[in-house]
Amino acid sequence: MTSKELMREAIRLSIENVKQGGGPFGAVIARGGEIIATGVNRVVPNHDPTAHAEVSAIRAACERLGTFDLSDCDIYTSCEPCPMCLGAIYWARLRKVYYGNNRDDAERIGFGDAFIYRELACPIEAREKKIKQLLPDEAAQAFDDWTAKADKDPY
Amino acid sequence: MTSKELMREAIRLSIENVKQGGGPFGAVIARGGEIIATGVNRVVPNHDPTAHAEVSAIRAACERLGTFDLSDCDIYTSCEPCPMCLGAIYWARLRKVYYGNNRDDAERIGFGDAFIYRELACPIEAREKKIKQLLPDEAAQAFDDWTAKADKDPY
Repeated sequence: MTSKELMREAIRLSIENVKQGGGPFGAVIARGGEIIATGVNRVVPNHDPTAHAEVSAIRAACERLGTFDLSDCDIYTSCEPCPMCLGAIYWARLRKVYYGNNRDDAERIGFGDAFIYRELACPIEAREKKIKQLLPDEAAQAFDDWTAKADKDPY
Repeated sequence: MTSKELMREAIRLSIENVKQGGGPFGAVIARGGEIIATGVNRVVPNHDPTAHAEVSAIRAACERLGTFDLSDCDIYTSCEPCPMCLGAIYWARLRKVYYGNNRDDAERIGFGDAFIYRELACPIEAREKKIKQLLPDEAAQAFDDWTAKADKDPY
C-alpha cells in the first residue's frame, strides 16, 4: 500500500470509531507498505486515558511482532500525535510519522493536545500542574543498582 | 500514608523491579493517602514500549476505579515522568505529581527522556524524527462528524 492509502485507512478508522462511541482518531502501523497493526481512541468506553489511537496501535504492533522496537515501521495517524503518543512513538523507535489533522484542529473540537504541548515545554515550576521533587537521595538507589547490574537489557 | 511514605513505596518498587528484570522505575497512585494502584517499568520483559511505571499505574488505577478521570488522585513516581508519562498524567487529570530522580539523572544512566523533551519542544520541521502532514482535507471528516454528533461523551 502507498503512504496515501495507509493514511486513508487511518482516516477510515477514525470516522468509523466515532460511530462506535470512540473519539475521532485512528492509526495504522505499517512495515514495507503492509499493515502490521491498527488502533483507535477508546478512552471513554474502556476507562483508559492512555487508549489513544497511536498508543493502542503501538501496543498491538509490539505484541504481534514480539518486540518493543518498531524501528522498521512507520505510523500513519489521522491526527498529529499528542505528547503522550509522540513520546510513545520515540520509545517504540518508529521510523516516520505521518499525520492528518494537527494539534490546533484537535484543540478546536475540544481536545487539550495543544495545552499539554505548552505545559511540557514549560520549566516545571511554571506549569499549571503541581509537580514537586521528593526524596531524590533515596530514589537514586534504583539507578545505582541499575548501573551496577551486569546482565541488564538496556534500551 | 504521608507523601514521604508513598514516595518511599514508589522507590521500593523501583529497586525491586531491577531485581525482577525490569527498568529502575516505580510509581504509586494514591487517593487521600491510600494506595489505589502501583506500576513498574516492564518495557523489555513485556515487549511493550508504553509499559512505563506511570502509564502502568494509571491504567491499573483507572481499571480499579472504573473511570478515566483520576482528578482526586496524586501520583508518586521514583523518576520525573518522561513526556509520554507526563502526557498520560494530564489526560488522566491526576492532581499532583511527586518525583524522585529527574530527567538528567535518567539520561546519565542511559534513558532518553531528556532527548525526547527537547524533540517535543522543537517545531515539527526542526526535529530529528521525520514527521509529515498528509491528506488533512480528508482527515477533517472525522472531526466534522465528532462535532456534529449529539450524544458524544467529551473529555
